[in-house]
Amino acid sequence: MTTDHRFLRALRRESVDMTPIWIMRQAGRYLPEYRATRARAGSFLALAQTPELACEVTLQPLERFPLDAAILFSDILTVPDAMGLGLHFVEGEGPKFSHPLRSAAAIDALGVPDPETSLRYVMDAVRLIRRELNDRAPLIGFAGSSWTLACYMIEGEGSSSFSRAKALALQDAPLMHRLLDTLARSVGAYLAAQAAAGAQALMVFDTWGGLLSPAMFREFSLRWLGAIVAHVREKAPGVPIILFSKGANAHLEGLADTGCTALGVDWTIDIADARARVGDRVALQGNLDPAVLAASPDAIRAQARAVLDGIGAHPGHVFNLGHGITPDIDPEHVAVLVDAVHEMSRRG
Amino acid sequence: MTTDHRFLRALRRESVDMTPIWIMRQAGRYLPEYRATRARAGSFLALAQTPELACEVTLQPLERFPLDAAILFSDILTVPDAMGLGLHFVEGEGPKFSHPLRSAAAIDALGVPDPETSLRYVMDAVRLIRRELNDRAPLIGFAGSSWTLACYMIEGEGSSSFSRAKALALQDAPLMHRLLDTLARSVGAYLAAQAAAGAQALMVFDTWGGLLSPAMFREFSLRWLGAIVAHVREKAPGVPIILFSKGANAHLEGLADTGCTALGVDWTIDIADARARVGDRVALQGNLDPAVLAASPDAIRAQARAVLDGIGAHPGHVFNLGHGITPDIDPEHVAVLVDAVHEMSRRG
Repeated sequence: MTTDHRFLRALRRESVDMTPIWIMRQAGRYLPEYRATRARAGSFLALAQTPELACEVTLQPLERFPLDAAILFSDILTVPDAMGLGLHFVEGEGPKFSHPLRSAAAIDALGVPDPETSLRYVMDAVRLIRRELNDRAPLIGFAGSSWTLACYMIEGEGSSSFSRAKALALQDAPLMHRLLDTLARSVGAYLAAQAAAGAQALMVFDTWGGLLSPAMFREFSLRWLGAIVAHVREKAPGVPIILFSKGANAHLEGLADTGCTALGVDWTIDIADARARVGDRVALQGNLDPAVLAASPDAIRAQARAVLDGIGAHPGHVFNLGHGITPDIDPEHVAVLVDAVHEMSRRG
Repeated sequence: MTTDHRFLRALRRESVDMTPIWIMRQAGRYLPEYRATRARAGSFLALAQTPELACEVTLQPLERFPLDAAILFSDILTVPDAMGLGLHFVEGEGPKFSHPLRSAAAIDALGVPDPETSLRYVMDAVRLIRRELNDRAPLIGFAGSSWTLACYMIEGEGSSSFSRAKALALQDAPLMHRLLDTLARSVGAYLAAQAAAGAQALMVFDTWGGLLSPAMFREFSLRWLGAIVAHVREKAPGVPIILFSKGANAHLEGLADTGCTALGVDWTIDIADARARVGDRVALQGNLDPAVLAASPDAIRAQARAVLDGIGAHPGHVFNLGHGITPDIDPEHVAVLVDAVHEMSRRG
């Protein structure tokens, strides 16, 4: 009876007994037990690539808090890694690729990875987590958007401007679209495989869409988010899809038009305004400022109340932060938030 | 006849022979001559605090490009430094304060610095630059917004979330407002003093306003931007004031309502939409994505054309980037942009 989970009901905009809540990056460095497992693994990549360890950290926040969903512990850059770019992490500097895309030939040589072979460790993690979860909460799988993956693949690492990726898009749009298409097909296959392995909802992180001008967002990010949704709908019909394009609140209508199930919303828009703009087409997930968790329990409750009041009696809301939880947060404050959301939203 | 400069005419929404252009951070690391002067100064702070050197780097971009305005070389954190917080720069880590604000007593002990004594080096730089400019182009003075300065003063350094500052605002709003008020009066006096020393336009950088939720933006950023405008209008009537609240396009109407002269606009909104929303109340400054300068000359011209087409025949546009130019840009690409904007916008 997994369809009775309030998280899945809320995504379908059905009535719920109380508002479901999960927290982006809930399996993360703010938890001492996560840091212990991470130390045992030796590296972030070893943690993500060892199904037993990925399963362990995925479940840790659910042992502590009555969260309404688990999210696979992994990284959006597993897909380009499977495409041969050589992902590694440099301490204090974040992700890097050994073979960034620096030529049309390199882009045109990319293939669509078979998830069950080159990303087998992710599929094994999904299967293991589903077994260990034993239906306590639904499991969310995820991937990066075409644009966001292309940014990293072209730059070879993180960037505050991704000017190399943007320059390629402006100078050779057909080449950029070939790359984004290959990525959309890869991400579509990857997400569908996660669903086949047991993921009950799928989320696409368009982390860098908000760095684009409106015209570039529509052409290079939104268009390919729509393609990903279409690929997943074809291969895994019925599985809810959440799109999260950070900093792209100007484009909520276009994002809702992709046919996704729900939109993640960051905290720079009133959730009532977001609801008014997308109407009943999609559920909404968000949108508390992660920094609120650094404030006092009273302030956390007041700010959570403001988000719940913004949604009011409308169905189709999954409570979350507007971005990932940061390492400086006291886990006790997360407990305050989860309890407050459940208590304040209890129906009947 | 300084009032005939096309930059000042555009701010007043008067007709111009061609669209004026200047570039945020135009005196910066992308210029080899800047890097040479910076090396000679020994440190960023020595460069900013020595009027002759600040004058030298302020004028450098105007020697290379036919820019329509100069902007004082300085730093927004000079004001908190003058308040006693002990500004210093750690190589590769950015600005830090020796005495961040960590108590109500520290906040309530802050006074309003007298610009002509504790910020004398800035006033001397303004006077020297005006003399050396000899009316080739108007000079812009600037300061940080109350909210943005408070962020740094509370954290003690830069941050991706400024959660400490936000937590204080949520937990003790009256205390935060006392700090923001002291800062608004300090910034107002500082900007008015820059105008008295010769600055012909004034710009307020609200670098971190866009990190706030709408409710917090209105209460903690926008309200005090309005206070700064009022202070400057009282002390330096007639001097144009440009407000730039990065990432806060959702609030353009409220920003225009402050009584400022112009709004800086980043590239995540079509400038035609920005114009439609603020009407004829203010001029607009922007809004090319800085990353466009990393692309080819043809792409730079096409993207500049798109901004100019977005404004169309409306008066009151100052061309600029939507954020500061980055160190990786080829100065030749800046020349392409400046020439393109002038040529493509030439009237009659």
